[in-house]
Amino acid sequence: MVTSDFQRARRPEHKEQRREAILAAARLLATRDGVRSVTLGDIAGEVGVHKSALLRYFETREEIYLHLTAAGWRDWAAALHTALDGATGASTAEVAGTLAQSLHERPLFCDLLAHAPMTLERHVSLESVRAFKLSALDAVEDIAALLARVLPGLDSVSGRNVVATVTSLGATLWQASHPPDTLAQLYREDPRLGHAVVDFTPRLRLLTEAVLVGLLASADDA
Amino acid sequence: MVTSDFQRARRPEHKEQRREAILAAARLLATRDGVRSVTLGDIAGEVGVHKSALLRYFETREEIYLHLTAAGWRDWAAALHTALDGATGASTAEVAGTLAQSLHERPLFCDLLAHAPMTLERHVSLESVRAFKLSALDAVEDIAALLARVLPGLDSVSGRNVVATVTSLGATLWQASHPPDTLAQLYREDPRLGHAVVDFTPRLRLLTEAVLVGLLASADDA
Repeated sequence: MVTSDFQRARRPEHKEQRREAILAAARLLATRDGVRSVTLGDIAGEVGVHKSALLRYFETREEIYLHLTAAGWRDWAAALHTALDGATGASTAEVAGTLAQSLHERPLFCDLLAHAPMTLERHVSLESVRAFKLSALDAVEDIAALLARVLPGLDSVSGRNVVATVTSLGATLWQASHPPDTLAQLYREDPRLGHAVVDFTPRLRLLTEAVLVGLLASADDA
Repeated sequence: MVTSDFQRARRPEHKEQRREAILAAARLLATRDGVRSVTLGDIAGEVGVHKSALLRYFETREEIYLHLTAAGWRDWAAALHTALDGATGASTAEVAGTLAQSLHERPLFCDLLAHAPMTLERHVSLESVRAFKLSALDAVEDIAALLARVLPGLDSVSGRNVVATVTSLGATLWQASHPPDTLAQLYREDPRLGHAVVDFTPRLRLLTEAVLVGLLASADDA
């Protein structure tokens, strides 16, 4: 049933439905199993079609996840607007808490942030990576401007630097706090590795606040 | 000649020479071409032996690069001692400059820092990942204590957080400033993507200083 419906799609709105179904399946599997472990075959199986049918809608597995990364940027920007639009004059602690909590609530986006530069951007066409970069940069600019409005003294250049730092740390700390099975076993068994265990949200909040305070202090000096 | 010498190694010191020859070949190729593009076959070709000969010394390609990552941590810690051991009371700007410059001078280490959690730690045995983690954590503790000595007011917990932030940003910014060919072409051609181009060392120095200033400020408040 799913298969024949899927393959009969000819009208533009049906094609868009098929694309959405593929993206939804890819999102479900990566949220459950991690981005690295999902293959194009897994996504096709979840949608209920053959792999070749997917390739009429997306170039590669990586293009599918690059679309989800771009969607993740838009979703994150929207969530930050909801939390911070009325928060002009908020403290650095409050803004750092909002940034860290919003990434804590978006584990798939954190996973994708690590995979985008390492693998996803490298296995798609020039036009796909252009579309992704323009979409992600729009979100970065939007969030940078929001942060500059909420924290007087922070300019939009510093706002972009905050976004770069928070997403770099979010990606790194998320991977560190979701180790492979061998490492998870080591962390449980070997007390010498206690410091390697990362508590994602408090650490991200602490370091985000430090960057905000440090960038505001250098703005004061200028 | 290389091949027959290599395969005849039986005494422990000869085995150690073989291991060093493999590591040197892997280092050379990854420095030239990037970690992601070097295969076990490439390393074997550079050493002048068959792949199967390498597997008597290392489990996988990833174990070879995990060894080089651990060596990179030790080398980085030694370089920071040389630069900072006599620098007690240095400014945050000086310490941030030293940290950023020392990573700028270690492009292979920056590349490995991104690959270690994403791929290298995931394709080796429990004992290999344990040896790597213990070695890397030793270096982190060493550098954290050094930073705490140089910057009065920074405790060793904050020192560890500085190391985590600098290495996360170093890994991310290095990947961003060494894009794949498609992205490099886009950056040259599409002015809308100007903000995506990363100037590695100044950006790393700026954000490292912000984190140092922010962490010292929160220590003052406590």
